[in-house]
Amino acid sequence: MHQNPLKKHIQSFQGCLHGGLIKESAEKYGLSEDEILDFSANLNPLKTPFDHPEYGLDFLKLAAESYPETYNYPDNRYLRFREAAASFLNSGITSDIRLTEENIIPGNGSTEIIRLFCQCVLNDGDKVIIPYPTFGEYEIQCRVQNAEIVYIPQEKIETITAEELTQIGAKILFICNPNNPTAVLRKREDLMLLAEKCKKSETVLFMDEAFIELSDPLQSVCDLVADNKFIFIMRSLTKCFEIPGIRLGFGVAHPEIAGALNAARLSWNLSPLQENVGAALMEIDGGVNSDYLKKSRELILKEANFLKEELTKIWGFKPGVATTNFLLVDISERTVKSTELVERFAKNGILIRNCISFHGLGEDYIRIAVRTRPENEKFIKTISIVFDEWAKDFADSELKSALTTHKQGLQQNKRETCEYYPCHFEGQDCTFCYCPFYPCKDERGGGKYIQSSKGGQVWSCVDCYIPHIPSVVESMMEGLMEEGETEDILKKEWDEIILPIMEEKDADHVLELCRKIKEENEKNPPKKGRVS
Amino acid sequence: MHQNPLKKHIQSFQGCLHGGLIKESAEKYGLSEDEILDFSANLNPLKTPFDHPEYGLDFLKLAAESYPETYNYPDNRYLRFREAAASFLNSGITSDIRLTEENIIPGNGSTEIIRLFCQCVLNDGDKVIIPYPTFGEYEIQCRVQNAEIVYIPQEKIETITAEELTQIGAKILFICNPNNPTAVLRKREDLMLLAEKCKKSETVLFMDEAFIELSDPLQSVCDLVADNKFIFIMRSLTKCFEIPGIRLGFGVAHPEIAGALNAARLSWNLSPLQENVGAALMEIDGGVNSDYLKKSRELILKEANFLKEELTKIWGFKPGVATTNFLLVDISERTVKSTELVERFAKNGILIRNCISFHGLGEDYIRIAVRTRPENEKFIKTISIVFDEWAKDFADSELKSALTTHKQGLQQNKRETCEYYPCHFEGQDCTFCYCPFYPCKDERGGGKYIQSSKGGQVWSCVDCYIPHIPSVVESMMEGLMEEGETEDILKKEWDEIILPIMEEKDADHVLELCRKIKEENEKNPPKKGRVS
Repeated sequence: MHQNPLKKHIQSFQGCLHGGLIKESAEKYGLSEDEILDFSANLNPLKTPFDHPEYGLDFLKLAAESYPETYNYPDNRYLRFREAAASFLNSGITSDIRLTEENIIPGNGSTEIIRLFCQCVLNDGDKVIIPYPTFGEYEIQCRVQNAEIVYIPQEKIETITAEELTQIGAKILFICNPNNPTAVLRKREDLMLLAEKCKKSETVLFMDEAFIELSDPLQSVCDLVADNKFIFIMRSLTKCFEIPGIRLGFGVAHPEIAGALNAARLSWNLSPLQENVGAALMEIDGGVNSDYLKKSRELILKEANFLKEELTKIWGFKPGVATTNFLLVDISERTVKSTELVERFAKNGILIRNCISFHGLGEDYIRIAVRTRPENEKFIKTISIVFDEWAKDFADSELKSALTTHKQGLQQNKRETCEYYPCHFEGQDCTFCYCPFYPCKDERGGGKYIQSSKGGQVWSCVDCYIPHIPSVVESMMEGLMEEGETEDILKKEWDEIILPIMEEKDADHVLELCRKIKEENEKNPPKKGRVS
Repeated sequence: MHQNPLKKHIQSFQGCLHGGLIKESAEKYGLSEDEILDFSANLNPLKTPFDHPEYGLDFLKLAAESYPETYNYPDNRYLRFREAAASFLNSGITSDIRLTEENIIPGNGSTEIIRLFCQCVLNDGDKVIIPYPTFGEYEIQCRVQNAEIVYIPQEKIETITAEELTQIGAKILFICNPNNPTAVLRKREDLMLLAEKCKKSETVLFMDEAFIELSDPLQSVCDLVADNKFIFIMRSLTKCFEIPGIRLGFGVAHPEIAGALNAARLSWNLSPLQENVGAALMEIDGGVNSDYLKKSRELILKEANFLKEELTKIWGFKPGVATTNFLLVDISERTVKSTELVERFAKNGILIRNCISFHGLGEDYIRIAVRTRPENEKFIKTISIVFDEWAKDFADSELKSALTTHKQGLQQNKRETCEYYPCHFEGQDCTFCYCPFYPCKDERGGGKYIQSSKGGQVWSCVDCYIPHIPSVVESMMEGLMEEGETEDILKKEWDEIILPIMEEKDADHVLELCRKIKEENEKNPPKKGRVS
């Protein structure tokens, strides 16, 4: 039997999970691509400069001008692109340093730059430090090189010492600024100190500044490459100019490093069209301080704060800092997990980023892009829709489970195994842990709408005891055990069992029932707490 | 002092030399890019299908259609491209095997495919076999991986055994078919045997079929990947569709290998424009047997044979086989070296490929692309121009050297050190080894035009003895030692020394001189042969 000639770790290689899966999601959820609103990829909500005639850039004109060059191999020095990149960086540098094309390595997207750097630095088994959570491509490209990944929490970066770095003995430390997905923006002065520690310990500080133009370009440390071979900067055109479909990024390094990487990169990694589009964009008047990028940052800051405020109002949604064009949201207090939430949003035509692929985040986080006001409002409204749907489906599934349990003659042991017991009253019957009528929207039972956010309200059952009254449960189960469609039976039971109770003008009848049950249970108390 | 963090072998890395340096050459030789005729890059002389409206393909329309996709990340499954590639291959497969998108790995140019494969197979120090001469990117990409390269002559491939392969213990054997730069086309049945030997010895047979559509697609072995994990095929769209500026190629492999490589490749290595252009081209009616590619092969075969015939007529030009869209030419019999020849052609607006970067070829070979008839004729004519210029410059430089020697009072020892002595007559004076009047184009001295090729004639001095007559040399040197512009002096000497001899109606005067010198030299013969 012949083996597989690939390296062992490549044979079962899994690529990186990313957002922006518009085509795949359209296929999966039966939507047209135009219907989809993508909050899963972080792009500039101002759209490209091509969409703003005042910047004088025309994509199709560039395509037509570049067309004759498709007949020839690209000039692989890529001088125009590299000069434009150096000028673009210089527009944001406050020190005396001026970068030149000798500092620039062009990339077919910034992931090619991460890959090239890893390939040229890492030997099999070399260590790298990745502070988590962060962008997944560092891990992926290090794994291609079969490097050993040392994970440290993001916060550890504030206090790590040169001695600790030396002790770890890693070749590279990856820092994303602002960090994807947390949006935390590190300060230039802190990074300058970190760069010194890295240099001392001969660990390259790999600075991913893909989002810096959309947050605060003054925090860039790209000028440090001038006299430090142990810092490497990665920039992207994808995010700030909203051109993920062009594939453009670049590396910035000491001329000695850049020279070697330019020799070791693919002979022709950019097409003339890519070079011309990239150069034209970076030659925009004012560079990182162009009107276009200033307006972009203003829009993003305003909208990120709007989203943060709105999300804060929603129970169980904890948005992180608003510094750039995306927000990390902690949903750990909600029962629903990120994977299910992402699915439910997608069915409603909105893509959000499941953070399960980010080391350390599990299913407790989602990441959302900052878009325009109408789009952001639509997203907020959709949260209510999604949670209404989720709760209804959850109740349905609980009913099915209750019926199955009942049919199989299993004991309902919820009281003894549920850590939340009693959620309504002592002695409640938990057969319908989730009400099969949710959301009935009938306030006579004690339920009511509560404010969940500016965009929506959530039906809360907090004061309704009806489906937990033992005699009610008994009657309902009798009906549900009969032949027939569950939906029809439930409709009948609503009319014959629930409504009569609700129609009692006050809740005395219900409360009386509860009191009796309570007394009974106090004589023979059920065991509380989760059975492990 | 801090070190360089790059791997040792990357720090001084040298990239691959390639042809097609139009922009660089225009700058270097002060030409406009439009003036340059590029015989150094091997492309389809029929131009792209976009240039033939009958194929219904419009590049700018594709660019406009792809433009909205620049706002989104590419769908990195690249299903349309991969399906089109599989169908394109299937159109040329004569066995029962049908490939699917599961066999295809898309590449940003085929060099990315070589790089990816090497990265996923080769560990530091692993061996690879490269039969020389061949395409330089195999060596480059293996060197990026720090592999050990075992060079064997191309001819050794015919006889290599599985045992020998096992003994070498290489991970990969690279075969380019037809081979760049020799144009030798290997037969499918021979390659099938070789594939078996490779499988047995667990050496991957890496088949570069970049030029197969432009020679004979029936010799492809791409279908062998279906049940063999030890063969890998690389294809290119650059050559057959003449789109080097788009950057498109792909790998073909067993689904297990292709799956792992698709996971390990860059997350987004193609733009939507690349995917759409590539798919549209490969979806051409008939695939590898489309009218477009059939016409391409007919044109190439006709023109390759025309060039071969014409080159064969030129002294010291030995063209190799005419199987595809380039020819290797052995110029080892000429005094001029390939590097100088390439420079001289470039000054005349024609780029040809110096083969110095091909292992084993040194400065004895040039490679020329097969282009259209008028272009090929222009190339042939330019050979005469280039050699006329070369001979004139050579004579000038020889004159300068003769003058320097004379001024420094050094002995003229040519007779004793030249392996060609006597090129004209015994006792000749070799001060002007090359005539400073070349090409005088005056037949009265004994020189004449000889046929060098259909496109040009070369001035031959074979029957002219005048600049080797000792008394003539003496008079000339006297004049040349005086103050003044060499050109003016030579003009005067032509009128006062050379013309009077030529104007003698018959050559008796010259012959009489020669006879005398001959007699004298017989008495005191000079030593012959090269002094080592």
